Amino acid sequence: MLVLLKPGAAESAVSDVTSRLRMLGLAVHRTDHEGQVRLCAVGEVGRVDWAQAAGWAAIERLEKIPSPFKLVSRAFQPAATLISVGRVTIGSEQLALMAGPCSVESEKQAFTIAAAVARSGATVMRGGAFKPRTSPYSFQGLGEEGLRILRRAADAHGLAVVSEVMDTAQVALMARYADILQIGARNMQNYSLLREVGQLDKPVLLKRGLAATIEEWLMSAEHVMSQGNRQVILCERGIRTFETYTRNTLDLNAIPVVKELSHLPVIVDPSHGTGIRNKVAPMARAAIAAGSDGLMIEVHHDPDHALSDGAQSLYPEQFEELVGQVRTIAGAIGRRV
Amino acid sequence: MLVLLKPGAAESAVSDVTSRLRMLGLAVHRTDHEGQVRLCAVGEVGRVDWAQAAGWAAIERLEKIPSPFKLVSRAFQPAATLISVGRVTIGSEQLALMAGPCSVESEKQAFTIAAAVARSGATVMRGGAFKPRTSPYSFQGLGEEGLRILRRAADAHGLAVVSEVMDTAQVALMARYADILQIGARNMQNYSLLREVGQLDKPVLLKRGLAATIEEWLMSAEHVMSQGNRQVILCERGIRTFETYTRNTLDLNAIPVVKELSHLPVIVDPSHGTGIRNKVAPMARAAIAAGSDGLMIEVHHDPDHALSDGAQSLYPEQFEELVGQVRTIAGAIGRRV
Amino acid sequence: MLVLLKPGAAESAVSDVTSRLRMLGLAVHRTDHEGQVRLCAVGEVGRVDWAQAAGWAAIERLEKIPSPFKLVSRAFQPAATLISVGRVTIGSEQLALMAGPCSVESEKQAFTIAAAVARSGATVMRGGAFKPRTSPYSFQGLGEEGLRILRRAADAHGLAVVSEVMDTAQVALMARYADILQIGARNMQNYSLLREVGQLDKPVLLKRGLAATIEEWLMSAEHVMSQGNRQVILCERGIRTFETYTRNTLDLNAIPVVKELSHLPVIVDPSHGTGIRNKVAPMARAAIAAGSDGLMIEVHHDPDHALSDGAQSLYPEQFEELVGQVRTIAGAIGRRV
Amino acid sequence: MLVLLKPGAAESAVSDVTSRLRMLGLAVHRTDHEGQVRLCAVGEVGRVDWAQAAGWAAIERLEKIPSPFKLVSRAFQPAATLISVGRVTIGSEQLALMAGPCSVESEKQAFTIAAAVARSGATVMRGGAFKPRTSPYSFQGLGEEGLRILRRAADAHGLAVVSEVMDTAQVALMARYADILQIGARNMQNYSLLREVGQLDKPVLLKRGLAATIEEWLMSAEHVMSQGNRQVILCERGIRTFETYTRNTLDLNAIPVVKELSHLPVIVDPSHGTGIRNKVAPMARAAIAAGSDGLMIEVHHDPDHALSDGAQSLYPEQFEELVGQVRTIAGAIGRRV
Repeated sequence: MLVLLKPGAAESAVSDVTSRLRMLGLAVHRTDHEGQVRLCAVGEVGRVDWAQAAGWAAIERLEKIPSPFKLVSRAFQPAATLISVGRVTIGSEQLALMAGPCSVESEKQAFTIAAAVARSGATVMRGGAFKPRTSPYSFQGLGEEGLRILRRAADAHGLAVVSEVMDTAQVALMARYADILQIGARNMQNYSLLREVGQLDKPVLLKRGLAATIEEWLMSAEHVMSQGNRQVILCERGIRTFETYTRNTLDLNAIPVVKELSHLPVIVDPSHGTGIRNKVAPMARAAIAAGSDGLMIEVHHDPDHALSDGAQSLYPEQFEELVGQVRTIAGAIGRRV
Repeated sequence: MLVLLKPGAAESAVSDVTSRLRMLGLAVHRTDHEGQVRLCAVGEVGRVDWAQAAGWAAIERLEKIPSPFKLVSRAFQPAATLISVGRVTIGSEQLALMAGPCSVESEKQAFTIAAAVARSGATVMRGGAFKPRTSPYSFQGLGEEGLRILRRAADAHGLAVVSEVMDTAQVALMARYADILQIGARNMQNYSLLREVGQLDKPVLLKRGLAATIEEWLMSAEHVMSQGNRQVILCERGIRTFETYTRNTLDLNAIPVVKELSHLPVIVDPSHGTGIRNKVAPMARAAIAAGSDGLMIEVHHDPDHALSDGAQSLYPEQFEELVGQVRTIAGAIGRRV
Repeated sequence: MLVLLKPGAAESAVSDVTSRLRMLGLAVHRTDHEGQVRLCAVGEVGRVDWAQAAGWAAIERLEKIPSPFKLVSRAFQPAATLISVGRVTIGSEQLALMAGPCSVESEKQAFTIAAAVARSGATVMRGGAFKPRTSPYSFQGLGEEGLRILRRAADAHGLAVVSEVMDTAQVALMARYADILQIGARNMQNYSLLREVGQLDKPVLLKRGLAATIEEWLMSAEHVMSQGNRQVILCERGIRTFETYTRNTLDLNAIPVVKELSHLPVIVDPSHGTGIRNKVAPMARAAIAAGSDGLMIEVHHDPDHALSDGAQSLYPEQFEELVGQVRTIAGAIGRRV
Repeated sequence: MLVLLKPGAAESAVSDVTSRLRMLGLAVHRTDHEGQVRLCAVGEVGRVDWAQAAGWAAIERLEKIPSPFKLVSRAFQPAATLISVGRVTIGSEQLALMAGPCSVESEKQAFTIAAAVARSGATVMRGGAFKPRTSPYSFQGLGEEGLRILRRAADAHGLAVVSEVMDTAQVALMARYADILQIGARNMQNYSLLREVGQLDKPVLLKRGLAATIEEWLMSAEHVMSQGNRQVILCERGIRTFETYTRNTLDLNAIPVVKELSHLPVIVDPSHGTGIRNKVAPMARAAIAAGSDGLMIEVHHDPDHALSDGAQSLYPEQFEELVGQVRTIAGAIGRRV
C-alpha cells in the first residue's frame, strides 16, 4: 500500500505513521518526491483495516500499487534512482560504460584490458572470478585471486569493479573487492542470494534470466529492495527463444518497458545477448538509442586465447570505435558518455 | 553452385556457359560484380559432374554456397540490392520511411494521414485493404475500394504504395494498385503465394513469420527470387516468445545478422513488433542504430476510432518527432532520411 | 450470442427466430442438444438490441459465449462432433489411425505402404502430393499424379484418404481425390484457404501452426466453421520452442485443453511433433493416454530412400507394434482401435 | 574419456589404471557392466597423451564420449541407475509415485494428506518447507518446523520424504529430514548448490529449469555426479513457451530423449507442468505411457485454502482414481505401480 503524507508533514508525524504501520506487522519504505513523503507498506497488507488507517492524521491519501512489485515501481518512487559508483552516476544523463574480460585470467591480461577500456571511456571494469559454467570440467574462474587482480587493475586505471557472486557464502568476500555485485542470469531467482545482497550497502547488478518475463525480473529486484538495499541496476542480456543464429535474443523492447514501470536504471549486455563479436556493436548502438542507461561489454585483447567467451569479446580497438558511435547517438537523445 | 567466370569473359562465353548449365536441368541466375560475371546455378545440383564443368572455357572457378539460400546470399551477390520505388531507393544510404494506417477506412482518413506522413518525410504509404484477422467476425478490410482510395491518397502526396496481398487470386489486382506487394507474417511460408509474386516485376516486402528463424525467412525470400523477382525487401516485425508484456518481441538482432548473410535490404516494423504506442519510437530509433534500411510505422490521426490496431498507431505529431530523432541517429552512422 | 430456444419449440418458431436474427445482419448456426435447439448468432452482434430480442417468443434465454471462438466452443455445442470417414467415426470411442508416407513417390511405394498400414489397423491413408518445402529446390511432390496414385492405393485396401492442400486454387482438385483435406501448419492462418475449405462438404484436418496458441488454432477452426463446414478435425503436431533436440515440441497439454474448450475431435501427429523415429512410438502412446481421438503417423517401408522426412518415418513393423500398444492403452481409458 | 578395461581384469590392475589416471590430474569414476570395468576419466583430458595411455596393460580400449555430459551418459553406464528410497526402487519396473501438498502448512494438513496418498499407493511424500516464491511478500514456507512435521507425517504412513533445498546453507539441515533432496527449477543452474548436494550420500531430485534444454539439464546432473553422488533423479516439470493457456508446457518429449541419452531415472511433475487441476490426470497418464519412471503430484484435501498452488492440486479422491488408471497403463508397457 502506498501511503502519501500531507505535503509538509513534520518528521515526527512521519515517524508516527511509520511506527503505526510497523505495529500492524508491515515493513515500511520511504521516498520523498516533490516535497511529499511517500511511504510504501509491504507485507500482509490484506489483514489491515485500511479504511481506518486512511483517517490517521498526516495522511493525505492511500493508493494501491497495482503491480505485484511495489518498491521497484514508479508508483512508489516517481523519480529515477541514481547510483553513484566511482566516476559515474548510473541512471543519470551520463551513460555507464562497463567493460572488461569475461574472466580474469592473469595479472597481465587484466591490466592490459583495464588500460584499454579506461582509455576509451569506460568507468567500470567487469571481470569474472567465479564463473557459472555449464560443464563442471570447464574453467571455473580464479576465485579470490582473480578478485585481487581485478581490483588492482581497476584501481590502477580509475575504474570501479563489477563481478559476479554465485552463492550466499561468497557475498562477504565479494563485497570486499567489488563496487557492484553482479547476480547472474542463472541466479536471477536464487532468492536466498537475492536476500543476502539485499542486506548490503552496495549496488547490485541484476541480470535478467534467460526465461524471465519482465515482471519476474522486477519481482527479483523487489526481493533485493525488500531487504533494504535500493541500489539495484537491471541488466538485459538476452532471452531464450527459438532463434539459434544468435546465442540469445537480446530483448531491447525490455528497455522502454522497464523505464515505464520502474525507477531503477537498466543497462544492456550485448555480448551475452548476441554471443557474436560482429553483432555486439550494432546492438550496443541500438540499446543506447532505445534508452538504455549504459552498456556492459566484454573486451579482450587476445580473444582467441580467452579462457571463456572469446567469440563474443570485442578487441580494444572495436570497443573504442563503438564508444565513439555511442557518443554521437547519446547526443541525439540528450545523453552523454 | 556459384560459377565465377573469368574477368572480362565475352557475353558469348557467358551465354555459352549459361546454356550448358540449363541443358543440365539447372536454372541460372546472374549478377555482375566488380567486372566479373557470377552465375548461380540452382536445382538438382547434386546430379551434375562439377569436376568436368570446372574445365569449361571461361570459367574461373566454382564455389559451393554453404547456406541453404543461394540467390539471397552475399556469396552470390556481394553488393547490396538497391530497390527504387517512387522517390526512395531502398537499401541505399537513404532510409525508407513507410507510414500510414493499419487499414484503409475511408477517403477522408487516408488523405488526412497521407498528407501528414508525407509532410514528415515518409516516401511510402502503407495501408491494408485485405486484412488477415484472427477472428472471422472482425473488420476484414475494404478490398479493392480500399486500394483505390489508398492509391489516390498516396498519389496526391507523392507517396509510393505498399499493401498486403493475402492470396494468389489477389496478386494481379494488387499489382495494379500497389508499388510494393506485402506478404504478411502469417503467409511467410505460403509457398504458392511466394511463387506467384516471384513472377512479378514489382518489389515484394516479405515480413518475417512469428516463429520463423532467420534462415527460414531468407529461404522464403529464396522462393520469391527463384522465380526471377529479385526485388525483395525483408521486414522484421517481431517474433513470438514467452514475454507477454509486449505483443511480440521485436528481434533487432536479426538486422545485423541479415546484413551479413544477405544483400537484400531489411526494414523494421516496430508497430507490430511491440504493439504498444509508446514503445514504437524507442524501438524505431534502435532499429536505425542497429543498421535497418528503413521503417514501417502505423500512423493514425484518430487511433481511438481506428478499425484495427489503434493501440499501436502513432499520432502524426509523434511520427514527426520520431523522424527528427531518426534523422540525427542516421547521421551518426552515415545514413540519411 | 447463444440463443437457447424453449425445449420443444416448434420448427416454425425456430425458423422465425432464425429469420429475425438474419434480418439483423447476423449469420445463424444451429445445433440440437438434449431436446433443445441452440442457435449461435455471429457477426456484428454489438449492434443488436439483445434486451429486446430476449423477449421474443420461443426464446428461453440468451447467453454470451465468453470465448472469442463461438461455433467451435462447447458453449455452443456441448456434445462431441463425430465425423464419419470411410470405416471410422472420428471423435467416437474408436480411435482414428491415419498412416502413410510423407510424400507419395510412386505407385509401388504407395501400394506397399497402404497394404501394410491397413493390415495393422489404420483406417485412413495419409500422403502428400503438394509438399510445402522450406527450399524451392527440394522435391515439391507429384501433384495430381500423386493424388491419383494415393486414391488408388487407399481404395485397394479400404482406406480413406487425407492429403494436404496448399492453395485455394488446389481445393477443387483435392476435393475430387481426398476424403479429408489437410491444412498444413504453415497455412493455419491462411484465411483465404480456410474460407475456401469452409465452403466444402468434406472434413478438414487443421494442423496447429508452429507458433499458434491454442486460442488462435481454435480461431482458425472458427474461420472454417463460419463458412458452414462443421467437419473440422484438429491436429496437434508440435510447436516451436527453444529445445532443439527434438524437431518440434509436441504439446500434448493441448489435448485436454482442446477437449475442454471445444467439441471438435483432436488428433496428434507425433512424426512431425518429434521428428525422430524412435521418439514417435512413446509420444503416440502418450497422446492416446492424454485423450487424443487418433493419430497421424508417417510410415515408410524404405525410409532411407524417402524423398522427404525419412528420418521420422516408422517402418511398417514398428507401426504394427505401436498399434498393439495403443490398443491396450485405449482399453484402459474406455476407447478402442 | 571412457577407459574400458579387459574383461576379467584384476582389481589390482583396476587400481593401477585408476592411480595413473589420477596422477595425470583426472578424476576417475567407475562402473561395472557385464563383467567389464568401465572407467570414466574427467577433467582436463585434452592435456593427456591418450595414444600412450592406450597401451597400458589391462586397458582394452579407449572411447571418447561424444556428449558434453560424461558420467550421466549411457556411453559410460549402459545399465539404468536404480535408486532405492523407502519402499520403492526408482528406475525399476516399479513406478515411483510421489505425492503431497505444495507446502507443509500444519500438522493436521500434513497427516491428513499423508494418510490419503499412502492409501492410494504413493511411496514418497512431497512437501515444501522452504518455498521459492516470486514475491517476497508471499508465504515462504514453515522452514525447519515444516520439515519436522513432514518427516513425522511421512513416517506415520510408511512414506519416504522429498523436499526442496534452496541454498547451500540449508543442505545439512535438509539432509537430516529428507530422504531425497529436491533442487527446484529456478536453481537448476545454481552450481554452488549442485556441488554441495553432489557431496551427499542421498538421492537428489533435479528439476528441469523453465528454459533449460535437455542437454543443459543433463549437464547440471553431471555437476552433481562429478562430486561423487550418483543418485540423481531427473524431473520434467514443464518448460516456458509462448502458450499461455497452461502455466507451463509439460515437455513429455524429454522422457524418451533422456531415456536414450542417460541411465538416470526420470519422473514427471504434471502439477507444475500444467498448473491446472483437470489437466493433471491426462498428462500424468501420458507421462507413464511415454516411459516416465514415476510421477510427482500435488495433492491437497482442501486446495481452496492451500497457502500455495491450490489451483493445481488434486483432491485425494482424484489422486486415487489417477493411480488406478496409471496402474492399467503401466501394465500395458510392462511396468507396475
